[in-house]
Amino acid sequence: MPGAAYTGNGSIDIIETPSAPVGHQDVEIAVAFCGLCGTDLHIVQGHMNGRVTPPHVFGHEMSGVVRRVGSRVTAWSKGDRVTVMPLLWDETCAACLDGNQHICQNLTFIGVDTAGALQSRWVVPERTLVRVPDELSLRDAALVEPTAVAVHDVRRSGLEAGDQAVVLGGGPIGVLIATVARHAGARVLVSEMDASRRARVAALGFDVVDPATDDVAAVVERRTGGAGADVVFEVSGAAAAVRQSTALAKVRGTIVIVAIHPNPRELDLQRVFWRELRLLGARVYRRSDFERALVLLRDGVVATDELISDVVGLDDTSRAVVSLAAGGSMKVLVQVDDSAEGVS
Amino acid sequence: MPGAAYTGNGSIDIIETPSAPVGHQDVEIAVAFCGLCGTDLHIVQGHMNGRVTPPHVFGHEMSGVVRRVGSRVTAWSKGDRVTVMPLLWDETCAACLDGNQHICQNLTFIGVDTAGALQSRWVVPERTLVRVPDELSLRDAALVEPTAVAVHDVRRSGLEAGDQAVVLGGGPIGVLIATVARHAGARVLVSEMDASRRARVAALGFDVVDPATDDVAAVVERRTGGAGADVVFEVSGAAAAVRQSTALAKVRGTIVIVAIHPNPRELDLQRVFWRELRLLGARVYRRSDFERALVLLRDGVVATDELISDVVGLDDTSRAVVSLAAGGSMKVLVQVDDSAEGVS
Repeated sequence: MPGAAYTGNGSIDIIETPSAPVGHQDVEIAVAFCGLCGTDLHIVQGHMNGRVTPPHVFGHEMSGVVRRVGSRVTAWSKGDRVTVMPLLWDETCAACLDGNQHICQNLTFIGVDTAGALQSRWVVPERTLVRVPDELSLRDAALVEPTAVAVHDVRRSGLEAGDQAVVLGGGPIGVLIATVARHAGARVLVSEMDASRRARVAALGFDVVDPATDDVAAVVERRTGGAGADVVFEVSGAAAAVRQSTALAKVRGTIVIVAIHPNPRELDLQRVFWRELRLLGARVYRRSDFERALVLLRDGVVATDELISDVVGLDDTSRAVVSLAAGGSMKVLVQVDDSAEGVS
Repeated sequence: MPGAAYTGNGSIDIIETPSAPVGHQDVEIAVAFCGLCGTDLHIVQGHMNGRVTPPHVFGHEMSGVVRRVGSRVTAWSKGDRVTVMPLLWDETCAACLDGNQHICQNLTFIGVDTAGALQSRWVVPERTLVRVPDELSLRDAALVEPTAVAVHDVRRSGLEAGDQAVVLGGGPIGVLIATVARHAGARVLVSEMDASRRARVAALGFDVVDPATDDVAAVVERRTGGAGADVVFEVSGAAAAVRQSTALAKVRGTIVIVAIHPNPRELDLQRVFWRELRLLGARVYRRSDFERALVLLRDGVVATDELISDVVGLDDTSRAVVSLAAGGSMKVLVQVDDSAEGVS
């Protein structure tokens, strides 16, 4: 069956993927939609060559329909509409034993450390499945995974109703964090360099600034009577945003590091000390975040029509990744198997 | 009366200081002892020229005896043994109104933003005084202020009994943090570059490593079954220690920034993200920290004889600051007015 694979040297090719065996506790899914994200970009750009071996079928933000189940699977049947929480933990490391399985010290990220969802048939362990309610389309269900990231980030921040939040970076995850934070009662300001993304963010009703021309710290001061932001989310991955984050937070305010920063970044520790700031890393999601994301999508809290800037066929995956790297677009979905819905 | 003042260009001179007026709510203290600390060093090295105007009498880690009280002071009398919590807040900024007066957005640090304690008579507002119990010598009472820093840092870290703490930097504050953490039931490892300081730290019963030759991360892994430290205190002010701190902390572990880092520092945000670390700034102390420090000193928890490496006269302040800058010594006290005890 066809799959989109990173084949090395920045290339993506459509390859014929072997049919994976369905183990006793596995489920085979006909993949309907699969979103492209920053991690996929890192894979294709070769930043994760230590973790993946080409040809590597990637993708992990998906929805689909169960097609076959292993012999010991009882909770799922052919035709069930599902998404996958793509984490496997070892249950034995110190992090797992302490209740932090989602950041297990030996975490397997499905789609990165194993084959991903950009293929028409995908086999995953039963325990990773999450049921998609009838009211949620399979297209929108492909947004559960990135929405779960946003739910996790906002929960980890300790954000409360009435708080002033600042989101540095107005891409898909930034917009999802802004959405979840607003839904939790926060006032939200988004800072984004790209004009087309700023327009999309503004169209969703968020206040938005351009860090290249606006004095973001002055805007935040004005909005908070000189206090500063309660929570700053660093979603951009930019060195300048990390430097700026400490200038925006109030005394004892919180900065959440959401973006991946492959290289060490300069941080104003003097300001961290001076204002007794709190800087938190936030990675992936717990099962409860994933389930909450499903509820938010089902209830129409997330503006999926505005967030999904394009839906392309599997053959166009390479072109879509190139345009993603160029910036400006929001969430791009690949429609992997357009007969998936029909399976049910 | 004589005082030790920063007179510009890295110099300290003994000057004749004017007699300060004692306001209605002020108290004049005969200063017995005054400790020298890193902040004083920053002043003398010219790093704080924007805040201080030479000649500037510095010093804020002190003990003394009340000599005169203002007309509206009723709680204090001549002869009372005291130390001073050298913070004045404005009561009106967002930080104060939110209960964080100790890091008021317009904090006045007595001894930095106003004249300090390295003079035989010192006038301060009544509300800064803290009573020294009879069981505590005035010499040891000069350690209340740095001990309060350590109490605040350990409290802010959320450290619990049985935790593995790592203290990066084995100077006076590092040793005080190690002492307070051990008293709270933690296992403590101290990392220190200087051989003579390492010897002093080891003599106090702490495990100690040399970051120049020991693989500190491997030592911490071994001590924690591969998990990492619960809490890391960055007390050294060194760029290398900041980079190392993230490698030492366990999943969801805490790093406390205690040292002053005048320039932005490189931090491994990838590790912050990956392990969902928490980085906290911790500055000065609350009143409750100050009072707890007094109790710890009164109860003999702090090894004052080992911590106080020298006691010099006021005339030797300059020489003592030079030797402090050279490193290796621990806490140096200046005996400011050797008749102070006699005042009572």
